[in-house]
Amino acid sequence: MKSGQKSHPRPRAAAGFTLAELALAVGGRVVGDERLRLTGVRALSDAGPSDLSFLADERRLGEARASRAGALLVRSEAVLPGRPAVVVGSPMLALAVWLDRFAPKDRPRAGIAAGARVHRTARLGAGVSVAAGATVEAGVRVGARSMIGPGAYVGPEAEIGADCVLHANAVVQWRCRVGSRCVLHPGAVVGSDGFGYVWDGTRHRKVPQVGIVRLEDDVEVGANSTIDRATLGETLVGRGTKIDNLVQVGHNVVIGEDALVCGQAGIAGSTRIGNRVTLAGQAGIADHVTIGDGAIATAQSGIGTGSTVAAGAVVSGMPAAPHREFLRRAAWLARLPELARRLEEVERRLAEAGRGGSAWSSESPKS
Amino acid sequence: MKSGQKSHPRPRAAAGFTLAELALAVGGRVVGDERLRLTGVRALSDAGPSDLSFLADERRLGEARASRAGALLVRSEAVLPGRPAVVVGSPMLALAVWLDRFAPKDRPRAGIAAGARVHRTARLGAGVSVAAGATVEAGVRVGARSMIGPGAYVGPEAEIGADCVLHANAVVQWRCRVGSRCVLHPGAVVGSDGFGYVWDGTRHRKVPQVGIVRLEDDVEVGANSTIDRATLGETLVGRGTKIDNLVQVGHNVVIGEDALVCGQAGIAGSTRIGNRVTLAGQAGIADHVTIGDGAIATAQSGIGTGSTVAAGAVVSGMPAAPHREFLRRAAWLARLPELARRLEEVERRLAEAGRGGSAWSSESPKS
Amino acid sequence: MKSGQKSHPRPRAAAGFTLAELALAVGGRVVGDERLRLTGVRALSDAGPSDLSFLADERRLGEARASRAGALLVRSEAVLPGRPAVVVGSPMLALAVWLDRFAPKDRPRAGIAAGARVHRTARLGAGVSVAAGATVEAGVRVGARSMIGPGAYVGPEAEIGADCVLHANAVVQWRCRVGSRCVLHPGAVVGSDGFGYVWDGTRHRKVPQVGIVRLEDDVEVGANSTIDRATLGETLVGRGTKIDNLVQVGHNVVIGEDALVCGQAGIAGSTRIGNRVTLAGQAGIADHVTIGDGAIATAQSGIGTGSTVAAGAVVSGMPAAPHREFLRRAAWLARLPELARRLEEVERRLAEAGRGGSAWSSESPKS
Repeated sequence: MKSGQKSHPRPRAAAGFTLAELALAVGGRVVGDERLRLTGVRALSDAGPSDLSFLADERRLGEARASRAGALLVRSEAVLPGRPAVVVGSPMLALAVWLDRFAPKDRPRAGIAAGARVHRTARLGAGVSVAAGATVEAGVRVGARSMIGPGAYVGPEAEIGADCVLHANAVVQWRCRVGSRCVLHPGAVVGSDGFGYVWDGTRHRKVPQVGIVRLEDDVEVGANSTIDRATLGETLVGRGTKIDNLVQVGHNVVIGEDALVCGQAGIAGSTRIGNRVTLAGQAGIADHVTIGDGAIATAQSGIGTGSTVAAGAVVSGMPAAPHREFLRRAAWLARLPELARRLEEVERRLAEAGRGGSAWSSESPKS
Repeated sequence: MKSGQKSHPRPRAAAGFTLAELALAVGGRVVGDERLRLTGVRALSDAGPSDLSFLADERRLGEARASRAGALLVRSEAVLPGRPAVVVGSPMLALAVWLDRFAPKDRPRAGIAAGARVHRTARLGAGVSVAAGATVEAGVRVGARSMIGPGAYVGPEAEIGADCVLHANAVVQWRCRVGSRCVLHPGAVVGSDGFGYVWDGTRHRKVPQVGIVRLEDDVEVGANSTIDRATLGETLVGRGTKIDNLVQVGHNVVIGEDALVCGQAGIAGSTRIGNRVTLAGQAGIADHVTIGDGAIATAQSGIGTGSTVAAGAVVSGMPAAPHREFLRRAAWLARLPELARRLEEVERRLAEAGRGGSAWSSESPKS
Repeated sequence: MKSGQKSHPRPRAAAGFTLAELALAVGGRVVGDERLRLTGVRALSDAGPSDLSFLADERRLGEARASRAGALLVRSEAVLPGRPAVVVGSPMLALAVWLDRFAPKDRPRAGIAAGARVHRTARLGAGVSVAAGATVEAGVRVGARSMIGPGAYVGPEAEIGADCVLHANAVVQWRCRVGSRCVLHPGAVVGSDGFGYVWDGTRHRKVPQVGIVRLEDDVEVGANSTIDRATLGETLVGRGTKIDNLVQVGHNVVIGEDALVCGQAGIAGSTRIGNRVTLAGQAGIADHVTIGDGAIATAQSGIGTGSTVAAGAVVSGMPAAPHREFLRRAAWLARLPELARRLEEVERRLAEAGRGGSAWSSESPKS
């Protein structure tokens, strides 16, 4: 691979920023010259003398020492003595705050672009933009300043809150409801039919899925993720929950607030996920499961039909078990060939003892 | 989360329906006043006095008793004595039948919408609709009454049967064939290239994928699922098979009739899946596998390259084993730490015996 | 299922081709009449007397013998004595070469189709085509002969190299870079936001993702796969790497050259994958993992956070272990119920011995 270092795009600040400005914005304290002026924000390995970088994880201290960054966001000035820095409680949070201010905020011009189709009965709030190739159907409401991206589709009677972004080719099906400040990444589908069939003796007969999906405020749905509408009622994703790419959420599922659902995780029908739950990558949650607040299902874990995970629990493996238990089992599983050998040895000694030629014959009780 | 109860959308029936009408439509028997008039259909927990609900799973009897529903579809009047009901052999099937009659059937006006692109050589049957943003290429045939949704794409020489629905942004690539009454949910891709490369000594050389995908009648393909075209010949999905969201079907795969492929399951190249097979969520079937009619691969199971699953078998785990065997292993795996302790104890006793200080000295044979 | 045999589409060659022409093109040697004229290329089971077929895997020798193919690509004439053939070192490679020449190469007319939107500041190379429904934003550059498919989206300031194909509804987000000869299959998303949040005490605060994705030359991205942009810097996919359908690549990931990433595999943030690595179907690689050149992660394997896989290693299972170790463990796991029974037997015999009624009483030392 060719080095792409020179060509990394970077957030631009025409005139740059000083450490004093940075510290003020992120609530930090300057170490070194507060008039030091930087122009970019880059990762440790890419940063040069005019860039800000950050040390969020002290396991990367070596990289931080080697970095050519002009200044760093750090948790304590002691970790990098003598280097220009801004000391904050959480360098990652400070980074988020600063990038949010600093990052490009290009947004399309408000209005309906040529090549967009908006039904005459749709009601768009102030400052809404609808890109070319997008379709907004009859009876739709879109809140102020929301952006409907190119190729995106909003079905009949759907509602989109204020300040939402529907990226390219995102889909919201009929009657579904999206709160305010939600983001649907490219290709995300909200409101596809739930997977509901009933065998009628000769074929799988479809159970019409006439419920909806409701996303509360501040929800993100990752690229090409899919959230099925309820059979009746609603599939619900609570306020502040973030869903990564290629995630499947089945019909009638309820996810609480501030949950994190990582890439390729799947949640089958009618399962209830509590607040602040984390489902790690490729975790699979079967139907009619209940997961308590704050629980964690680790990567690739599998939680079986109808089971319950207690609040705060951490579960792993398939079938899922408490994480410590999983680790113990995994450790013993790795030693299973050894255990089998030891068992054979025990059997051999008993057999020898049984034949009178005891394995411990020299000190044998028969003497 | 705020309660969304008041705002659930519900199927509408202007004048509602009586229990007599319902019983007639679903082939059931009324318990109570057959003139009772209802206006909606809702889940047990959401239903009010003017709603129909249903009890399909008797584990939910408690919920049914607590439900405020005006009437219920039930298997036997004995389960909810004294409540208005319609008794049917399968409440879920009756629900499907009733919702099918009852659910909104909005369909776009027939014809080619402004903003749709249909090649002049494409042949559209009577009553076909092509939505804005859709593209229908040269030589395509679309059967009567099929709907091509917004942003959907039908490639050159593809054939779509009658009464199909291609939802928003669904894709059917060149020459692929879709039967009648098929549904492609948003973002579904039929006919993407198979993943075929051959190492030529210096690079992965692509094996052109010149076969097709053929979906027989009554197939559904879930949102953002992908079905690859064959290298030569065809990838085939049999009549009545239902595929959930985010499923991957590799090139040259053959799936039989009336199979169910649940969310995020994956099927690698050249595998053959029988009739009425169920692949549960996240199941992974490697290449060149054969799965017999009626078999079930449970959630997250992994079936290895070239293996065979007998008709009617139920397999679980990775590598997959008969389900009972999997459960036994899982149970013993959970007890593995205990087994290891017991083995240590046996070894300790043998060692003590070997040293002459037998673990069973008080009753020892040497006395 | 009805037999689709008659209706398989096949690559067409108006006048067909002779074995001599075939042998010349693929560097092989004719066995039989070199003037034999064929008109199609089909799989063993579908081929008729006017079709070429191939035997790439000698386990399919029985099928090859039964095939009605007019001639075959084979590794040695000895395997099918007396049949017309072209002998080559690699029948699969020869097939790839021949299909590449033979397969239909329909391509859209160069230019911007009616219904496509191309920003006036975008720069398109010679012979570029932009299909109806596609959007090309401001500042984009597209290299010569690249095809932007229907409904595809290229975001602001993105760069696409020469001879690329963006299939229907593929998305390249702002500033991302795609090399030459890359293929993005339908619905593929390049440059969606990385999944980065930091808890600020009351909510998940988004860490703006201001880096890019860079695909080097000759990369393919499968249907509905998603590749997230870096937080800062770039997510990188090396030259010649092929990515299958429904794959997730997290932010800041680096994949080397000529790697193969199979269907539904997932790679979490900041992981580094070497050259010529294979990730099989549904493999899950956690964050901050390092995988050495040429390593293989088998299907459904799970590699934990921060771990390292040596170059050339083959790993399996969850948590992943060397493949041989995995097989040994799986074999012992299958025997675990038996081991448990044997342990019980040992315990029983020891207990009996302890009670003086030894399990080996007939030959007992106390006699």
